[in-house]
Amino acid sequence: MSTHDLGLSGDEVKALDRAHVFHSWSAQATLDPMAIERGEGSYVWDYDGNRYLDFGSQLVNVNIGHQHPKLVAAIQDQAARMCTIAPAVANDVRSEAARRISDVAPEKLTKVFFTNGGAEANEYAIRLAKGHTGRPKILTTYRSYHGATTGAIGLTGEPRRWANEPVTHGTVHFWGPYPYRSQFHSDSPEQETERALQHLRDVVMVEGPQTIAAIMLETVVGTNGVLVPPPGYLAGVREICDEHGIVMIADEVMSGFGRCGQWFAIDAWDVAPDLISFAKGVNSGYVPLGGVVIHEDIAASYDEKPFPGGLTYSGHPLACASAVASMRIFEEEEILGHVRRMAQDVYEPRLRELADRHPSVGDVRGIGAFWALELVRDRDTREPLVPFNATGADAAPMAQFAAACKQRGLLPFTHFNRTHVVPPCTTTRDEALEGIAILDEALKVADEHYTG
Amino acid sequence: MSTHDLGLSGDEVKALDRAHVFHSWSAQATLDPMAIERGEGSYVWDYDGNRYLDFGSQLVNVNIGHQHPKLVAAIQDQAARMCTIAPAVANDVRSEAARRISDVAPEKLTKVFFTNGGAEANEYAIRLAKGHTGRPKILTTYRSYHGATTGAIGLTGEPRRWANEPVTHGTVHFWGPYPYRSQFHSDSPEQETERALQHLRDVVMVEGPQTIAAIMLETVVGTNGVLVPPPGYLAGVREICDEHGIVMIADEVMSGFGRCGQWFAIDAWDVAPDLISFAKGVNSGYVPLGGVVIHEDIAASYDEKPFPGGLTYSGHPLACASAVASMRIFEEEEILGHVRRMAQDVYEPRLRELADRHPSVGDVRGIGAFWALELVRDRDTREPLVPFNATGADAAPMAQFAAACKQRGLLPFTHFNRTHVVPPCTTTRDEALEGIAILDEALKVADEHYTG
Repeated sequence: MSTHDLGLSGDEVKALDRAHVFHSWSAQATLDPMAIERGEGSYVWDYDGNRYLDFGSQLVNVNIGHQHPKLVAAIQDQAARMCTIAPAVANDVRSEAARRISDVAPEKLTKVFFTNGGAEANEYAIRLAKGHTGRPKILTTYRSYHGATTGAIGLTGEPRRWANEPVTHGTVHFWGPYPYRSQFHSDSPEQETERALQHLRDVVMVEGPQTIAAIMLETVVGTNGVLVPPPGYLAGVREICDEHGIVMIADEVMSGFGRCGQWFAIDAWDVAPDLISFAKGVNSGYVPLGGVVIHEDIAASYDEKPFPGGLTYSGHPLACASAVASMRIFEEEEILGHVRRMAQDVYEPRLRELADRHPSVGDVRGIGAFWALELVRDRDTREPLVPFNATGADAAPMAQFAAACKQRGLLPFTHFNRTHVVPPCTTTRDEALEGIAILDEALKVADEHYTG
Repeated sequence: MSTHDLGLSGDEVKALDRAHVFHSWSAQATLDPMAIERGEGSYVWDYDGNRYLDFGSQLVNVNIGHQHPKLVAAIQDQAARMCTIAPAVANDVRSEAARRISDVAPEKLTKVFFTNGGAEANEYAIRLAKGHTGRPKILTTYRSYHGATTGAIGLTGEPRRWANEPVTHGTVHFWGPYPYRSQFHSDSPEQETERALQHLRDVVMVEGPQTIAAIMLETVVGTNGVLVPPPGYLAGVREICDEHGIVMIADEVMSGFGRCGQWFAIDAWDVAPDLISFAKGVNSGYVPLGGVVIHEDIAASYDEKPFPGGLTYSGHPLACASAVASMRIFEEEEILGHVRRMAQDVYEPRLRELADRHPSVGDVRGIGAFWALELVRDRDTREPLVPFNATGADAAPMAQFAAACKQRGLLPFTHFNRTHVVPPCTTTRDEALEGIAILDEALKVADEHYTG
């Protein structure tokens, strides 16, 4: 037994958890958390030895899979070299992580400000934009999630913001494209793009472009639906930003670092934003890390004027070393190419087959290792399987679906009326097919609620 | 060479830093960061082999010293066991970290919400207080620092807030005790306590107690001066909170986990707050970690109502394991007792001797391993050696003092007109005396500006 194995049973782990751990986003008395003992690759195991295929990559962060041996070794090596040092000094792995991230970012995004996670990354992205432009407002979309600190929850365009209202002034929410549930009554992705861009232009006009510091978008909207932007949308946003001197911020906390088969998802559309926020996949969350990649013109705004922000662990050596190692492993194992091949050969065709077999699957969409099945009661009306933001009995059909997955050895990522297919980027063809076969069985539960 | 040693020279590290790393709180073009190659115990080394005694514990976080071998080993062990897992599940080291932290916290502070650092800890502390009370406002002091995310920078009562104005509504700043520069024209610590409490009562009265969710205090104000509360002050704040149903929040991000010779600084005054925010010393920042220790009554407010906050890395296993290991090492090596002995035998007497020898030392104050020398031009007028928030030429005397320390092999922690003595909690008597001897030499630079 290592000095660090506490020797606790699963029941003891759960009992201590319930006694002492206060959980995120939860009514504490209602919790009955699974105790997870270990993870490896695409799987985790509970204390009873049950194995689960992790089709959510935890919170869509273990892009490299659980306990990748090379990444573990890199963390162990760096722990022996240097765990922590203040942000004011120069440090080798911090320098190298910033260089590597800049190198894979669009041209002229040459500097990196490191944070501890995605919420802080978005906090600092908007601060950079406001200071650069001298303008007070940020535009973000409804159906977005940008984090839960005070600034980030204000940017967020979904119910997790509600309990934190009123939020910071200066965020205006607009509607992004969502062909399956169009706000613009469009009947094709092309029309959705055209109308969504016209809507954004109209919002910019009535809000006043000279008041808008930034337009911030999840490149592919994550938790709120894997909303892949239709052709031309991101380029259109770029044009609107250029026209008005507005900073374009791509929130790639979830979509970056392999999730979409690219270092940055936006590369798939060949658009260059001015700021990219990242976290999660940068090092698969093995050590907390996030950050912002910064266009040189924005960085230059702070050449003489101090940047008004910072944190003790900015550029944390252990975290930065794990990012360097993770990016190396992605290259050595050609993980980006693997993701793109899996999308083409497995995820897209096999998930579309599920839609052929299950009436409750109203829409299949995605890119890379980032897919959603939208479950409905009726394909014509597109009535969702459960209502927006449902809880309790209203949410029961989705809870039953999730339970059916778990019974069969799969941890699904469910949100509202959707199940997302977001396994590690390293998940193999056989593992993915095993998971999709479990979804195939579990979707029968959803089909029972179909009324169309 | 380990697979992870990048083999960069100091010049290469600095060049990459200047090309790609965006720094906290800085005008980027003016930076010339030291490149630090390694650390051990109380020392760090640059790439030219120069050794520096770390009298700032980096940003007052490496309480256990640099690269403590047992803590490094614990991180390596946990890396092999499990680096990361989602916050929704139960995990052994997360459970155990929460238990250990609860065990050393005041009675009834039984639950822990984990974050990635101190700013987030304060963000979530105020969210817990607002949700518990249903009240909108937080009272904090001028001359405080609570972090730099949108919520935390609004709480902050010093210039780092200015460039982020306007901040979130709902924070009101009042004056805390500061006997050396009393806002209340007091002439003793006892009178300072009495008058500061009367001031706080008056602020509560005119703001309206039913609008105030929490009073948040750094138990010992950190970066803004090592302001040790005079006798009775914290107990008085507790009484005011009790009288009006206001949550008392102790920000112990800097003062906790050994810095004041206690697990929590507030134990030195035998006062129990309702929430304690922590970070830094909990694991010496070897892995980013922070959190809030929560009174059971506040936790119970979220038994049925979901807590509206969370983060991907809440209760991060690698971070929690390092906290468990660090607390074990503190016990095994009796570090808290060492700090208290060092305060009594070395820090207090020897720093007071500096004041005897150097007219520029206007005040010496502190507790544990947490001390400040306040430098003045005149002991009678108490005119500070440099003006409040000075920059450039105005700040030159302090810059000269800091340079004199570095030349002699000491990294000081300077802020405004003060130098803080905040070495690791593990710093030995001989190391401390070595550092104080360097201060003794460097203070001659400050004395040259003395005009009294």
